[in-house]
Amino acid sequence: MNGAESLIHTLVNGGVDVCFMNPGTSEMHFVAALDVPVQPPQPTLPHSRQGGESTPPPLWGRLGGGEQLPLDSVPGMRGVLCLFEGVATGAADGYGRMAGKPGATLLHLGPGLGNGIANLHNAHKAHTPLVNIVGEHATWHIQHNAPLTADIDALARTVSGWVRTASSAATVGADGAAAIVAARAGAGQVATLILPGDAAWEEGGVVAALPPTPRPAPIEPERVTEAAALLHNGRRTALVLGETVMDEASQRMASRIAGATGAQLIGARSGRRVTRGAGLPVVDRIPYPVDQAVAMLAGVEQMILVGAHPPVAFFAYPGKPSLLAPPNCHIHELADLRSDCLAALAALADELDAPDRLHAVHQLSRPTRPSGPISVEKVWAGLAALLPEGAILSDESITSGRNAHRWMSGAPRHDWMHITGGSIGQGLPAATGAAVACPDRRVFAMESDGSAMYTLQALWTQAREQLDVTTILFANRSYAILQGELRNLAPHASGPKAGAVLSLDNPAIDWVQLAQGMGVPACRVTTGEEYNTALTAGIEEPGPRLIEVVI
Amino acid sequence: MNGAESLIHTLVNGGVDVCFMNPGTSEMHFVAALDVPVQPPQPTLPHSRQGGESTPPPLWGRLGGGEQLPLDSVPGMRGVLCLFEGVATGAADGYGRMAGKPGATLLHLGPGLGNGIANLHNAHKAHTPLVNIVGEHATWHIQHNAPLTADIDALARTVSGWVRTASSAATVGADGAAAIVAARAGAGQVATLILPGDAAWEEGGVVAALPPTPRPAPIEPERVTEAAALLHNGRRTALVLGETVMDEASQRMASRIAGATGAQLIGARSGRRVTRGAGLPVVDRIPYPVDQAVAMLAGVEQMILVGAHPPVAFFAYPGKPSLLAPPNCHIHELADLRSDCLAALAALADELDAPDRLHAVHQLSRPTRPSGPISVEKVWAGLAALLPEGAILSDESITSGRNAHRWMSGAPRHDWMHITGGSIGQGLPAATGAAVACPDRRVFAMESDGSAMYTLQALWTQAREQLDVTTILFANRSYAILQGELRNLAPHASGPKAGAVLSLDNPAIDWVQLAQGMGVPACRVTTGEEYNTALTAGIEEPGPRLIEVVI
Repeated sequence: MNGAESLIHTLVNGGVDVCFMNPGTSEMHFVAALDVPVQPPQPTLPHSRQGGESTPPPLWGRLGGGEQLPLDSVPGMRGVLCLFEGVATGAADGYGRMAGKPGATLLHLGPGLGNGIANLHNAHKAHTPLVNIVGEHATWHIQHNAPLTADIDALARTVSGWVRTASSAATVGADGAAAIVAARAGAGQVATLILPGDAAWEEGGVVAALPPTPRPAPIEPERVTEAAALLHNGRRTALVLGETVMDEASQRMASRIAGATGAQLIGARSGRRVTRGAGLPVVDRIPYPVDQAVAMLAGVEQMILVGAHPPVAFFAYPGKPSLLAPPNCHIHELADLRSDCLAALAALADELDAPDRLHAVHQLSRPTRPSGPISVEKVWAGLAALLPEGAILSDESITSGRNAHRWMSGAPRHDWMHITGGSIGQGLPAATGAAVACPDRRVFAMESDGSAMYTLQALWTQAREQLDVTTILFANRSYAILQGELRNLAPHASGPKAGAVLSLDNPAIDWVQLAQGMGVPACRVTTGEEYNTALTAGIEEPGPRLIEVVI
Repeated sequence: MNGAESLIHTLVNGGVDVCFMNPGTSEMHFVAALDVPVQPPQPTLPHSRQGGESTPPPLWGRLGGGEQLPLDSVPGMRGVLCLFEGVATGAADGYGRMAGKPGATLLHLGPGLGNGIANLHNAHKAHTPLVNIVGEHATWHIQHNAPLTADIDALARTVSGWVRTASSAATVGADGAAAIVAARAGAGQVATLILPGDAAWEEGGVVAALPPTPRPAPIEPERVTEAAALLHNGRRTALVLGETVMDEASQRMASRIAGATGAQLIGARSGRRVTRGAGLPVVDRIPYPVDQAVAMLAGVEQMILVGAHPPVAFFAYPGKPSLLAPPNCHIHELADLRSDCLAALAALADELDAPDRLHAVHQLSRPTRPSGPISVEKVWAGLAALLPEGAILSDESITSGRNAHRWMSGAPRHDWMHITGGSIGQGLPAATGAAVACPDRRVFAMESDGSAMYTLQALWTQAREQLDVTTILFANRSYAILQGELRNLAPHASGPKAGAVLSLDNPAIDWVQLAQGMGVPACRVTTGEEYNTALTAGIEEPGPRLIEVVI
């Protein structure tokens, strides 16, 4: 068994059985190993499952002698080809968010990692569990400075919580197991494993079992009692949930606390995975514009953070604050991301004797289907009118999504994925990965034209894998957010060059042709009626679609 | 004057008057400053032009009171909008290669730089002069770890020869001047200037004059005499020109030396800018496949390097060498990239008393126009048949370009740009930048489908700027090079998963729709006759075109 085979078998045995890939020459042994039937862990390494201790999980299988099974029935690692690395990393992010376990990537050397950096940045900020595998030249080749040689380690460290370079075929299985454990540690993180060619192709690979996953840091009782004391002292208090604490259970627990104490319940501006809709508690979201955010938090005297940092402005502006809470606000951290934040909330609810009921809950409320000329508001209303239970929204609608919650909070329960790291080009890839993770749920990519252009190659992977993703593309033919920011930042600037570089209307992008060119059926809508028809098809028909809404 | 204005005015005065940009909020003051009439350097810094010493170059101008000139006539910096940062960096690379002076980029924070890394890697390996400007949060905002905060400096160092973070509006002009000088130093390099928001928007900017450009390292006479001695000792000798030494003058000088001494003249596998065609000397190119390269160099007893490293395999393979020269080959470096390599060649020619005539020259030889079913060979033959004098080829044809020289070496004189860093996704952006640099020349992007998908957004910029670029797209619907590499590296692997992730035929990509969707007229050809017609239009009509050749 070579190193690549031992790595893939270790990953699959450890539950990492999807790999979003854009391989190159140095990764060919990994690619070849995709077809090798998966072997169980070998009892030659520390932490491997030995004797009768535990039965190996039924994750591996074996092909019959020479039998050629159809692609879908070959057991082991599923390779999902992406035609650009930013698609692969964004898809792995979306997958990890929705699967709740790491997916893998396979990238080609430093430049391949470079192309994947922006969406790894988003995954890094979201604490998405992700095993990021980057091929490298054979160890003895690096010194010769071949054209593709680059400092992969330095690149990887900018977006990873854990980085390791495999040193041999004999140990790369164990490195893979360590990468899975690292990816799952704490709230989750990007774990990058750099894979030199010779560590992949040499014989002597050993399939490794997973070492134990480290337990989260214990809840600190004094932090819980202090939080309870703050919530009882009569001052105006906000309970702030971080990006990874927006799952349904955490929101419900936090809502119990808010109901029992009168605290304001605030969620992160951007969440890794935010469950919303009818039956979910009301959680305020911090607005993007600094003035609105400061106004929202004015008068808050105390802030209790749960897996959250003190709220901060997305960007800096002359004469405006970076920190959004009032200067004298007392900040108390109940639990950080190394802890089990839900357990910390439960301990606080217990300490407060909070009744088991939610403070305020969104009621099911569907708008009527829109008609007449289409608009941004009608797009959201129409989606809320038709949204199926359990839908997933990959939200990169930017300016077109500012008021989406007005319509969507009464729709059936669904999950949102936000751009946690602020790096656009996440929406289409993350939708792709989420659809791989949840084949029984409908995925909607809420896209703006400027952002969608970054990683439009994701549409091809959606077509190839026949994923149930409907992209709703708000075509305002501009970088609308930047037009606003230019007015904010340089109010007297109105020159023709500045205007030109924020406009996408010359030429106008034809998204129907772009989508069809990559195998995704597409249409352009100008009325509510056309939109309803297109959206219904997107919900009822299998496979991907794109709806261009010119606004 | 704010910092951004002082920076732009410094750049324009220093000859950097094109900026390939994809800005964000933190770059809005730079964008606003595009429209401010350019001011001359201010005499308050060291190295500024003072008194009667020299007249400021006529690079700046002034708009009349309130007069709104058409976009093209506003003096100063030309902003070229790119819808993805990899397009911006690749275009700046192509621009620098053809203009022979640095262009600028404007990228948005760490993730924007990340998206641009792969093509900066190519520029870095090509020693292209390039001023790479990366926006950063305001200095006081970085500590708060806002979503887009990343380690820009670490990212930049992986692809730059020079990196500086501006510290204030008062000094950012001088930083820009230093960046130009750094970009021009030696053979040229990527100089990254990180621009915090407050250094751009604060008042107190000072337009800086360029400090003197450092002279190249002196030619070492003993290296010249030793090279001459080697060329006279009767052993088989190769004269190897590096990536930046493939301009016409260097090739001619090297050919004189080869003619006088019988040395074999070898050029780098990939060049920054390689002048070729009728009237140019014959220069052998080292093949990509290791076995072929080793065979070509077998028997070479001595190698004289001119701005070159010892030839090295592109990738490592089990059981094959990294270094391509025979093990006992004596290596002598005539000049490295800190020196003026042409001057070193001239000194060597003088030392040898080499007659002023070329050793072997390509004769003008145009194939007949192709007919019948199209093929890879016919595409090249047809191009050679019609190529206009002074054409520029951005070559990313990969496997489809392996035999191109057979056809093209007899065509009228033209320039090639290769993928110097091996990172695909360069071809369309570099063609875009070259067309901006050379509006009076025809540019041909020789593209493979897999590579073109990486940065297809470049087509939109070609349409917007109405650049004379004809993209000839070889659609083999596979990663053909990887299919070959898989056979090389894992000859017994033939599994369905491995095969699937190297194939692009499910679904087939419709390049005509992709190009048209971005405003570029396009057609698909299946015969030589159709191809000739499409190519003639690409040569004679203004603006961009794409020809999809299904092979």
